[in-house]
Amino acid sequence: MNIQRVVRDLVTTHRVTTLAHKSLRVVEDASGTIEVALDPVGARPGDFVFTISTSAARFAATQPEIPTDLTIGGIIDYWSEELWRP
Amino acid sequence: MNIQRVVRDLVTTHRVTTLAHKSLRVVEDASGTIEVALDPVGARPGDFVFTISTSAARFAATQPEIPTDLTIGGIIDYWSEELWRP
Amino acid sequence: MNIQRVVRDLVTTHRVTTLAHKSLRVVEDASGTIEVALDPVGARPGDFVFTISTSAARFAATQPEIPTDLTIGGIIDYWSEELWRP
Amino acid sequence: MNIQRVVRDLVTTHRVTTLAHKSLRVVEDASGTIEVALDPVGARPGDFVFTISTSAARFAATQPEIPTDLTIGGIIDYWSEELWRP
Amino acid sequence: MNIQRVVRDLVTTHRVTTLAHKSLRVVEDASGTIEVALDPVGARPGDFVFTISTSAARFAATQPEIPTDLTIGGIIDYWSEELWRP
Repeated sequence: MNIQRVVRDLVTTHRVTTLAHKSLRVVEDASGTIEVALDPVGARPGDFVFTISTSAARFAATQPEIPTDLTIGGIIDYWSEELWRP
Repeated sequence: MNIQRVVRDLVTTHRVTTLAHKSLRVVEDASGTIEVALDPVGARPGDFVFTISTSAARFAATQPEIPTDLTIGGIIDYWSEELWRP
Repeated sequence: MNIQRVVRDLVTTHRVTTLAHKSLRVVEDASGTIEVALDPVGARPGDFVFTISTSAARFAATQPEIPTDLTIGGIIDYWSEELWRP
Repeated sequence: MNIQRVVRDLVTTHRVTTLAHKSLRVVEDASGTIEVALDPVGARPGDFVFTISTSAARFAATQPEIPTDLTIGGIIDYWSEELWRP
Repeated sequence: MNIQRVVRDLVTTHRVTTLAHKSLRVVEDASGTIEVALDPVGARPGDFVFTISTSAARFAATQPEIPTDLTIGGIIDYWSEELWRP
């Protein structure tokens, strides 16, 4: 799993039907690289989260048939810029 | 998931039978690196899309037996060069 | 599998329910990059461990439905900074 | 999927039995990095191919129990050095 | 699959039970980066091998429940430093 920070929501009206109305967030890592993650926990911009990738991302969604390769697994309680970018 | 831009179609007459007549697109990321993605949503050159990798790419195709490791998940409504290459 | 070193515990009160009360550790590799790993073996900060990724991470957890993409597989008996950062 | 070029055959007499007599090719990408791919389509040295990775590589082989993480998916009809290394 | 060279055995007394008494080897790639691979073929230090990653690594082990993300698939018959580091 990786530690990332939520940047903004991703708006995509036209998407594969199996992703339906799932919440997608733009997340960034310590180097500023952005990715898109499914969010089943309700994270907000600025939150530090840990994200789950590969097949485990599907298992972290509510059903493993949901086609996600990156899912937010939880919001980190104590984290800071200093721990993230040593 | 990653944010990529559609560049062109990929023409391959001689391919594994399980990929049959599926549409394949050449996509590029913010650094200009190219990959090939299966397209179930009908994206066009220049569209910003989000792409789904690993086993989720198969689930994003219409049937999970389709051998794709990268599938276009949707077309992004609001995106720009500035958000992509900060 | 990769060789990593345990740095600290990760505290996340608000997480996906399928990860429940599993122990998560912050681990670092030889270049100092950090990741988060599920720990079924009880490793402690400073231990050199080998970590298992992709779908095998789920199989290394006690049940393959647990959504982890990185699981500590064991504590290495003989390892040192010199072998790690040659 | 990635675009790679076939370099040569890989000769391995002593291998896991599940790979039996499958054809393995050394392939290179645009930066010259080499990998090994299973070839179910009969590509030849010099051919530009697209390759399929992760679990989809197994589905692209004739049976998904075949342990391949990279399988040639097809031979590209129109491709050149200029498109590959822009 | 990747081409790697066996460096040494990895000794881990305390490991997840599903890996039991499996042989683990430290392997390096052409750039000197080390990883750990399960070895079902009996490779020795100095051997050039090809390694299988992602879910295929589990299928290359004797049983797909074995939690390995990298498994030695075979020993390469003809290979040299020159082919490896061009």
